[in-house]
Amino acid sequence: MPAFPLPHILASLLLGITLHAAAIAQPATDTGQPRQVILIVGDGMDEQQITIARNYLAGARGELTLDNMPMRGAVQVLTTEDKVDGKPVYVADSANTATSLATGVVTSRGRIATSAGADQPLTTIVELAQAAGLRSGLVSTSSVTDATVAAFAAHINFRLCENPLLMVDVRYSDIPLGDCSQHLKAEGGAGSIAEQLASSRLHVLLGGGSKHFEPKAEGMDISVQALAQNNGFTVVDSQQSLENAAIGQRLLGLFAPSTLPVRLQGEGQREAEEPDPSLLNYVHKYLGDVTLPEPMRCEDNPAFASIPDLKSMTEAALRHLAADNASGFFLMVESASIDKQSHERKPCGSIGELQQLDEALASALAFAETHPHTLIIVTADHSQAAQLIPDESLFSAYPIPTYTPGKLARIITPEGATMSINYATTNFMMEEHTGAAVPLYSNREGIGRLRPFMRQPELFAVMRDYLGL
Amino acid sequence: MPAFPLPHILASLLLGITLHAAAIAQPATDTGQPRQVILIVGDGMDEQQITIARNYLAGARGELTLDNMPMRGAVQVLTTEDKVDGKPVYVADSANTATSLATGVVTSRGRIATSAGADQPLTTIVELAQAAGLRSGLVSTSSVTDATVAAFAAHINFRLCENPLLMVDVRYSDIPLGDCSQHLKAEGGAGSIAEQLASSRLHVLLGGGSKHFEPKAEGMDISVQALAQNNGFTVVDSQQSLENAAIGQRLLGLFAPSTLPVRLQGEGQREAEEPDPSLLNYVHKYLGDVTLPEPMRCEDNPAFASIPDLKSMTEAALRHLAADNASGFFLMVESASIDKQSHERKPCGSIGELQQLDEALASALAFAETHPHTLIIVTADHSQAAQLIPDESLFSAYPIPTYTPGKLARIITPEGATMSINYATTNFMMEEHTGAAVPLYSNREGIGRLRPFMRQPELFAVMRDYLGL
Repeated sequence: MPAFPLPHILASLLLGITLHAAAIAQPATDTGQPRQVILIVGDGMDEQQITIARNYLAGARGELTLDNMPMRGAVQVLTTEDKVDGKPVYVADSANTATSLATGVVTSRGRIATSAGADQPLTTIVELAQAAGLRSGLVSTSSVTDATVAAFAAHINFRLCENPLLMVDVRYSDIPLGDCSQHLKAEGGAGSIAEQLASSRLHVLLGGGSKHFEPKAEGMDISVQALAQNNGFTVVDSQQSLENAAIGQRLLGLFAPSTLPVRLQGEGQREAEEPDPSLLNYVHKYLGDVTLPEPMRCEDNPAFASIPDLKSMTEAALRHLAADNASGFFLMVESASIDKQSHERKPCGSIGELQQLDEALASALAFAETHPHTLIIVTADHSQAAQLIPDESLFSAYPIPTYTPGKLARIITPEGATMSINYATTNFMMEEHTGAAVPLYSNREGIGRLRPFMRQPELFAVMRDYLGL
Repeated sequence: MPAFPLPHILASLLLGITLHAAAIAQPATDTGQPRQVILIVGDGMDEQQITIARNYLAGARGELTLDNMPMRGAVQVLTTEDKVDGKPVYVADSANTATSLATGVVTSRGRIATSAGADQPLTTIVELAQAAGLRSGLVSTSSVTDATVAAFAAHINFRLCENPLLMVDVRYSDIPLGDCSQHLKAEGGAGSIAEQLASSRLHVLLGGGSKHFEPKAEGMDISVQALAQNNGFTVVDSQQSLENAAIGQRLLGLFAPSTLPVRLQGEGQREAEEPDPSLLNYVHKYLGDVTLPEPMRCEDNPAFASIPDLKSMTEAALRHLAADNASGFFLMVESASIDKQSHERKPCGSIGELQQLDEALASALAFAETHPHTLIIVTADHSQAAQLIPDESLFSAYPIPTYTPGKLARIITPEGATMSINYATTNFMMEEHTGAAVPLYSNREGIGRLRPFMRQPELFAVMRDYLGL
């Protein structure tokens, strides 16, 4: 039975994409059973974020699904200047970290599977998997054109070149941020991220970002979405159409114009706020008084109900990737807004997105129960700004107004205590990332394959070797 | 051959302390070989601190001795309000965390091996080890009366009651901080921390804090140090006297009046400094300019040369604990000033103290090579304030002055790049702790005994069971 259904093969041939039929026929391992890798990425999911989420979701003495993983380690994140043989840069962004995971190569911030300085394409694990006849899937709560997903299936020098209208002199509020002219199709390039994804051989691609598929493909009279459909993708845009999609189709799921709505938000949409010192405190920091933000609860975000959650998308991806597949697959699942909500100083948002990751992990573990050759790796791409700080200062005996610089949120947890979280990496409207090594988890298949301390690009080699690529 | 040499036994009998001779005669394990636990605590040593130290000491692609440990996990820190059945508190101090490690019981901040609310003494692993005839040792770069050491061998309601003069109405700058009246000997208590240590049956106690042994013991006409000597301790006060101390003596090493000098300091003793915005930036945060602290190097602290380093103290402790010992031992080694230097916003200081921990670990691992039944656990007590932030902002394209709130240090690493570290948990003169789960490492003996995710008090049970207590 063919690994790819006939309509896909026809569509692919139509576009001149060569299928590696021999590889498809050959099982990926010598046991004759297919192998799968499920890589789950919590964007910005560092130990602070995990502890904050654990305290809220399970209580200080509780535990997450993550906490029951049999293997845990730490991953040193590597970044370089944008030049050949550049010096190290100690804090990453999601583009260069996803490139590390996807290609095993250290690159510079903002780059999508291209090399620092030289701008050469770096082969991704998705491309290796496809070349060997394995299926591949990418799932995210962000736009599918956003950095983490993009680095697994596209090659471009700047992450914001997400669609054909964002290729030349990319600006925000009239500020020039970058340019991808050399990757225009007219210049012999592969075009924007959306165009590259639309032309890809991914079996499943689910997330947000429909707005990036609306512009016309460069040099064509059809939208990027139509390009994807011509390339064999069935486009779904709702929980129902996702659930109903017949097995055997290649799926492009676009469930929101950009990032998907998050599960949780602060009461009344509150985020972290600045402590408010009294006038006297401006005279001297040990004088006067300070008013801290009132404690708040987290509440459901109504917009979340209208989209598939990460668990549903993960389960759909697994269903489509595994069906009638003797060759195995690679799947990357990202909970993107742990990071994005932290940039915006919204701790409830990050907590809910970590919960989404934990649920997606449970689905992956359930899949592995019935598909024994499944390596599940959970990690983060980089650390993030939130810090869990004392709600009552260690120095509260001193009769002076002590408070955090930056912004503060005080969350009432379900167990009835107050958790103070600060955001204090920058005065800018968005928090910065931080540079700490990130957590690493795996299921039993990772024991002996992963080491307790690894460098981020080394994860690529473990996944590649597991799949026999 | 007796586990304790004769002079110690005589001294102990003189003070009416019962030695459990039967337990001494009995090997701690059924293999007939002694078992040892070496618990190494990096005070405040979270993933940010480790990454900062790794980048500086070994380079971004380098690795520490820590990184080669075969087992790694995460430990959830637990703290409670100071009442029976109190609610959780999400950020700890070093007193309650050391109590968790030493006794397996969650208590409230500031408490030394006493229960929250009820103020009952909690039995420590040192006491259990001694009762079973095992030796015990405590080594720290802080005062030996400081919280982490104290919680293993003393019981008192407030950590600052370090000597007989600090028992009633403890104040700092005339601000009342706490009181331990109920633990006065006159009230039937065991007295201050120094007095309890002086009266203890520890085999080795090394660190700083000589000033706490100078006052007269409560109700006695001799100093606390003389009390310790009467109790069989040989007092050493220098690297040389430590090296020369004959095997068979119980050692009290006091190498500085309080905390030991640290290894590294900022160039010209610089610490993290506030970014300096221009006048226009006070009008609006997106206007004007900002002057960041100049990058600096770390340099040796001259005062460090005059004291034994943590590695020397650890090796001395191991030598004295292991000699002629058929019963095994418990040793706790603390690198205290990772935390203390972070409170003071001195990243070079924290880096050097993490290096000291890494070296002490190497000594412990070498010991375990020749003493196979040695469980080595490395962990931290709680997380700390330092954050590794981008030296070049992720948002540097925006022509506005972005900078961190709080204080900033920019460290030039030996590999020639600049590492930015901020401290921004409070406007107070000392940074706060943070609440993230802390790292856990062990040697091979810990595999299968420790789990990848543990709660801090559970480490106590693992150590106790390993020693057969």
